[in-house]
Amino acid sequence: MRKRAEDLRRDGKVIAVVPTMGYLHDGHLSLLRAARSRSDVVVLTLFVNPTQFGPSEDLSRYPRDEDGDLAKARSCGVDLAFCPDAGAMYPPGSQTFVEVRELQRPLCGESRPGHFVGVATVVTKLFHLTRPHLAFFGEKDFQQLAVIRRMTRDLDFGIEIVGMPIVREPDGLAMSSRNVYLSPEERAQALCLVRGLDAAETLLRAGERDAGALLGAARAPCEAAPSARIDYVALLDAEELTEIERVERPAVLAMAVFVGKTRLIDNRVLRP
Amino acid sequence: MRKRAEDLRRDGKVIAVVPTMGYLHDGHLSLLRAARSRSDVVVLTLFVNPTQFGPSEDLSRYPRDEDGDLAKARSCGVDLAFCPDAGAMYPPGSQTFVEVRELQRPLCGESRPGHFVGVATVVTKLFHLTRPHLAFFGEKDFQQLAVIRRMTRDLDFGIEIVGMPIVREPDGLAMSSRNVYLSPEERAQALCLVRGLDAAETLLRAGERDAGALLGAARAPCEAAPSARIDYVALLDAEELTEIERVERPAVLAMAVFVGKTRLIDNRVLRP
Repeated sequence: MRKRAEDLRRDGKVIAVVPTMGYLHDGHLSLLRAARSRSDVVVLTLFVNPTQFGPSEDLSRYPRDEDGDLAKARSCGVDLAFCPDAGAMYPPGSQTFVEVRELQRPLCGESRPGHFVGVATVVTKLFHLTRPHLAFFGEKDFQQLAVIRRMTRDLDFGIEIVGMPIVREPDGLAMSSRNVYLSPEERAQALCLVRGLDAAETLLRAGERDAGALLGAARAPCEAAPSARIDYVALLDAEELTEIERVERPAVLAMAVFVGKTRLIDNRVLRP
Repeated sequence: MRKRAEDLRRDGKVIAVVPTMGYLHDGHLSLLRAARSRSDVVVLTLFVNPTQFGPSEDLSRYPRDEDGDLAKARSCGVDLAFCPDAGAMYPPGSQTFVEVRELQRPLCGESRPGHFVGVATVVTKLFHLTRPHLAFFGEKDFQQLAVIRRMTRDLDFGIEIVGMPIVREPDGLAMSSRNVYLSPEERAQALCLVRGLDAAETLLRAGERDAGALLGAARAPCEAAPSARIDYVALLDAEELTEIERVERPAVLAMAVFVGKTRLIDNRVLRP
């Protein structure tokens, strides 16, 4: 992969990479299409990265469909798919990790210790292997995007990080490979996340700036759904991911909610 | 720097980098000459990296001589010198660090907490900025070389790391920018390091394999020098830097000794 990428760069080609864990949905496809529109060569990476899963998480049952993914990738004009196995990515003796110390701490960092070290490390490796000029990530993983942006700046990667809007199902549920875990009943109740975000945004537009009030509105639909259990609902500065009392500049309302056993995340940027 | 390096790569040039903290001595110059012999473009970096110094260490008084360094570099055929300032390398909000978890632990890692995180981080940044095919480091910093080799492999940098032999003064003292700190009396006593290494190697060649005996021989000259205070003298597996009882495969005898207030390091690889 690296040899191929280096040859392409030497030929003056602009490379865009879309790193994914596979089981592609329309959110991923929007990244691939955006990458296609801005580069000569689109590289899709498919790798379910073990180092970003905790010991009690869903690594072993994470959904996979490489053939289906490659067909979808082809339809979006992907040029290269890079699908390494875990043994090639982490040979014996591997011990080097990248951490983004502050931004990795709140939200999913608190619920999933080590998660963002795994993300930053694998993205570093994938950047080195695919040598991109541009890299595309979804805004659904808001904190991941913030971590990767900061890492890219701090380590002088010289790669443009492009964030793309959340893609939703017709009824509003944010697309996620993990939605496949939901039973029909859970699927219905999973709408509590987007309803919470909608409620908070409506309140904001009516003039509310107080974090407590906005968070209350966001939590209410989740608290009312019997299969839902809130992991976190938080309102943070959109740049630094530090807690705020009032929305005075762009903030992110971020939530993680277990619906049955499935942990879903969603977020919205609130602008005063 | 990165733009320049990317243009050079696109033109098919082979880039070699020699990362240094400046105040160049003949050890550094041997790296530059080796780099010159194996590349089209030699990049010297001069940067006294604050993140690899502890709070009570010698960052503020570390010797500097940029004009002298550039003159020496020119005489070795260096093409580009990259001399960033600390504010450019670590702008406000910088928070991303690279760690090599096991290899950073013993020896200087124990005496200088955080040192190798600083080293791995700045070398990652310098690699990204200078885009080398080859990078040259001295074997005097044996653990640093091991950390950088492992990091380069683990993070898939695709850079060949070249280690070069220790260069010594005529009387055997390993060259170091910090030797300038030594008073004449300390300079004489500083020979205890190389004498310890020589004594241990002589014993090894006589058939001794026991770590305790070899370490005893290495310590004796330092213990006899009144201005010397041993920080560590250790015998480790040369690959994994784990302690060994006997020399059965290549081992590194490594030492750090304060001579007066100046901390000196030296090492030798012992092969059975």
